[in-house]
Amino acid sequence: MKDKFFNYIHKLQDSITSKLEAIDGEATFHEDIWERPEGGGGRSRIIQNGAVFEKGGVNISGVHGTLPDSMKKYFGVEDADFFACGLSLVLHPKSPMVPTVHANWRYFEMYDKDGNIVDQWFGGGQDLTPYYLFDEDAKHFHRTCKTACDKHNSEFYPKYKERCDEYFYNTHRNEGRGIGGLFFDYCKSTDTMSMEDWYNFVTEVGDSFLEAYVPIVEKRKDLSYTHEQRNWQEVRRGRYVEFNLVHDKGTLFGLKTNGRIESILMSLPPHVQWVYDHKPETGSEEERLVKILENPVEWV
Amino acid sequence: MKDKFFNYIHKLQDSITSKLEAIDGEATFHEDIWERPEGGGGRSRIIQNGAVFEKGGVNISGVHGTLPDSMKKYFGVEDADFFACGLSLVLHPKSPMVPTVHANWRYFEMYDKDGNIVDQWFGGGQDLTPYYLFDEDAKHFHRTCKTACDKHNSEFYPKYKERCDEYFYNTHRNEGRGIGGLFFDYCKSTDTMSMEDWYNFVTEVGDSFLEAYVPIVEKRKDLSYTHEQRNWQEVRRGRYVEFNLVHDKGTLFGLKTNGRIESILMSLPPHVQWVYDHKPETGSEEERLVKILENPVEWV
Repeated sequence: MKDKFFNYIHKLQDSITSKLEAIDGEATFHEDIWERPEGGGGRSRIIQNGAVFEKGGVNISGVHGTLPDSMKKYFGVEDADFFACGLSLVLHPKSPMVPTVHANWRYFEMYDKDGNIVDQWFGGGQDLTPYYLFDEDAKHFHRTCKTACDKHNSEFYPKYKERCDEYFYNTHRNEGRGIGGLFFDYCKSTDTMSMEDWYNFVTEVGDSFLEAYVPIVEKRKDLSYTHEQRNWQEVRRGRYVEFNLVHDKGTLFGLKTNGRIESILMSLPPHVQWVYDHKPETGSEEERLVKILENPVEWV
Repeated sequence: MKDKFFNYIHKLQDSITSKLEAIDGEATFHEDIWERPEGGGGRSRIIQNGAVFEKGGVNISGVHGTLPDSMKKYFGVEDADFFACGLSLVLHPKSPMVPTVHANWRYFEMYDKDGNIVDQWFGGGQDLTPYYLFDEDAKHFHRTCKTACDKHNSEFYPKYKERCDEYFYNTHRNEGRGIGGLFFDYCKSTDTMSMEDWYNFVTEVGDSFLEAYVPIVEKRKDLSYTHEQRNWQEVRRGRYVEFNLVHDKGTLFGLKTNGRIESILMSLPPHVQWVYDHKPETGSEEERLVKILENPVEWV
């Protein structure tokens, strides 16, 4: 399973980065191969200053070794060996008309002293953060998520959509980071779902990513926008930073476990603003977005 | 003591904001008076888009009531009533030649059920974050800190200088946020220092702030700078954000205890950049700064 999924994310990274390069037309991904001193490493691919993508990363990693102390505490276990691999991506488009997207698919194994697997699970999801909200884009993104989920279990979409709204929430702002999508974790073998079934589900979601995001980019990337709309995007990107640095477990986990800083913080947007007490105008498109972030919508 | 110190920070806020307005010459502070539903409130003063100060806040607050759960846990106490007041300031100058400065002076009281004081302490400090390092500025800032300390105890400066270097440290980057200054906390009554003595010490440091910072601003505010130097400032401001959102206890505490978000996050810089794997050129001024942030210097 470990090798199968690791192989899958390598191929997925290739297909996603080549498609995104084709859309961008100007910038290409810069590749950094890195090693983790304690075991394993990764392949980070970063795009910057493109025609469409101002900054983004599509990173894979596979790490293993003895569970670090902070992870022991987190999982509530004693000494153990582990293996973890996954693909993480964040794309910050230049135009405020094109939403930021985040996705992640990961697999985890824990071993006893004899190297037997004692626990294993999948996790992941994908979610959208628009600066200007086109309802049809939100519907398209969620519909694609639902279609992928429904092939496996009709309860998955409503459940993982709700978890996504809960997880990507800036509690200190009382608003969601974006308009959600899917978020699932600790997907373990059960009577009805074997690990093989979970693999099929997680890769189904992985395979749906380009279908969920690319049509939105194509539709919005050439729309014109004003300096004020760009400012609004940069202010909203500040909220993205706040979520990732204050609340996101994955980011904090990485920062506290000697992860590769540049690969972790590739998620942060290129140009960001913090304006004191910034409030959108009454009745504006910006205000409509914030109201929707405060009260998640059923898009499908 | 409570009233005396609260009165002091009101006056200090006035003297600091009027001096800063005089230096800026263009922008003035916007004042927001706010109330805390659970008791107390504050007076935030914010300056934005000035000739010298791109963004800054000089805020006072005085809050009281029942200790919130998160504070109980933090202080390791049971149910208690508390009073806390302080002045917090952060100034982000427009020019990368002028350093960012942060300062804070605060006082805390805890009460038993009958309203008797069971614990009380002062805390605070002031620290400098340059983007281009002029050694004479660092020396001036630290010398002013030392002079204020030495009037009370010759051990204070080395001790609180070291604590400042330790506290304002981005562990995930292995570098200091800036070149330090003073940081002290839990300054409680002892055989040699009464609360009155601590009051005199803390207000001495408060009174030294303008003397420590203003001459540096005056000296550097009219220096010319390039677009590249401004970019470097915005990239370094990213590290400021990282510290405040990932590590700063005061910020996280405020975010998790229903503090006034806009007053807490006024500390975040106005325009910020995150560039993937940004590294200063070998032998450059930018590289020299980073090396000094990695290995704190004795400036006095």
